[in-house]
Amino acid sequence: MGSSEKVFRIGSCAPGTRMSPDLARRAQALTQKAYGGKVELVFHPQCFRRAGHFAGEDHERIDALVELANDPKLDAVWFARGGYGACRVAEFAIPHLDAHARAKRWMGYSDAGFLLAGLCGAGFENVAHGPMPVDLFREDGEEAFLRGLAWLVKQDRAALEPSLKPGEKALAFNLTILSQLLGTPLEPDFSGRVLMLEDVGEYMYRIDRYFFHVTSNAAVKRCAGIRLGRCSAVPKNDPDFVLTEEEVARFWCERSGIPYLGRADIGHDSANRVAPFT
Amino acid sequence: MGSSEKVFRIGSCAPGTRMSPDLARRAQALTQKAYGGKVELVFHPQCFRRAGHFAGEDHERIDALVELANDPKLDAVWFARGGYGACRVAEFAIPHLDAHARAKRWMGYSDAGFLLAGLCGAGFENVAHGPMPVDLFREDGEEAFLRGLAWLVKQDRAALEPSLKPGEKALAFNLTILSQLLGTPLEPDFSGRVLMLEDVGEYMYRIDRYFFHVTSNAAVKRCAGIRLGRCSAVPKNDPDFVLTEEEVARFWCERSGIPYLGRADIGHDSANRVAPFT
Repeated sequence: MGSSEKVFRIGSCAPGTRMSPDLARRAQALTQKAYGGKVELVFHPQCFRRAGHFAGEDHERIDALVELANDPKLDAVWFARGGYGACRVAEFAIPHLDAHARAKRWMGYSDAGFLLAGLCGAGFENVAHGPMPVDLFREDGEEAFLRGLAWLVKQDRAALEPSLKPGEKALAFNLTILSQLLGTPLEPDFSGRVLMLEDVGEYMYRIDRYFFHVTSNAAVKRCAGIRLGRCSAVPKNDPDFVLTEEEVARFWCERSGIPYLGRADIGHDSANRVAPFT
Repeated sequence: MGSSEKVFRIGSCAPGTRMSPDLARRAQALTQKAYGGKVELVFHPQCFRRAGHFAGEDHERIDALVELANDPKLDAVWFARGGYGACRVAEFAIPHLDAHARAKRWMGYSDAGFLLAGLCGAGFENVAHGPMPVDLFREDGEEAFLRGLAWLVKQDRAALEPSLKPGEKALAFNLTILSQLLGTPLEPDFSGRVLMLEDVGEYMYRIDRYFFHVTSNAAVKRCAGIRLGRCSAVPKNDPDFVLTEEEVARFWCERSGIPYLGRADIGHDSANRVAPFT
């Protein structure tokens, strides 16, 4: 094996929506530029498949995930992007994951939260909420991409969400995705964990309704507290909702008895920091 | 009391969004035209209040609902409209309802589903999913309004959702609202009941995600089966979702082991029929 043993290999699949080959090439070029031959980023061909809304049929997305996860030559699985579709994959893929999968580092956010939750619930210890290759499409997206890579490759503490204290356990989700996995087999254990929540493209009345749903849940109430990430691209409410997202978060935290702990440096943007689940 | 005892009195409040006084006047004129003095429809002034998104502050909407519900002179509470906000009202209002409230007939749909669910969960026996006064804004809205009125006043069987069989217990909800009340104190008992679901204005990928959420829920799985109402005003999915809403419903029912029972004649439209919860 020789020098090849020192290469850190990352496999990427798309459990939801399709990714463009062009973006994958940009991700590989940037990885090469930043790490030379020390890091290899491999995109499973499934990323570029298309079946209606999804990056291939359910069974293709399930198979690609299981293949990467159980591959002993790979050190990490990086979800290429979100979109929608991971909830059609997670319950079928996770039972097929072996010890190689368990030893890997995992990262993604947004729709990939269905998988982060399910993996955490299955006892996987190296799961993190953080940037994905698709972030390269954003303004300053290279920063996000390199931050994600730095966490996966060398667990660079500079990538971490800054409020995290040593020994503090966290979970981080898109608010919509968390709402949609509560009460399903993908629900993780919230007990004693700081719960970070962000969202994108949702009306304020929906953010308010999601907070009702999430904070009224008995399992969520066992969390150590909620931190609010960024809510971006909020469409204009008509009439004006008056309350801001932080006022909404405080309202529902107070009503449910969950401590509101302040803001979290996560969101659907280039500044999105890494929140490990362990 | 004399002849006044023969008048059927309906009180209307708006637990979510505001209603226009003009629509209320049209509703009262149509009630007068259809029933003469035999039916009285009273709109609580709260319906016309405004506090940001809502028809008055939370406490105003809670107080109006409790006031109408416990008023011994009223025979029914008819939710004037949906919008958004009933989830901020239900848990606070329901514990204050007395025997007069319990004896009344109740009807609404959409966002009012939070209240229908909570009332059903609290053992109220005369709760129905059906048209509301706000339906008058629709094309052919008078049909919907008069159908709702006929159910409230005389439990007219012609108003009923036609698949309902004698002795069959049902629940009916907007799919989004049901998703958002699962796991909260408003969740009703699904055991042995036919569950009818409709939605409006949601992307197909969201309808799919809601079906994942709802059919993965252990409590929902105890229902007798799901019937799909209309999913209207579905925005264009890009790329095309390929699956129709009925294919989505069948997919998730099959996956979860819940019987798919066919279509239900409910929806956000003038054809919306009445589905009593008893």
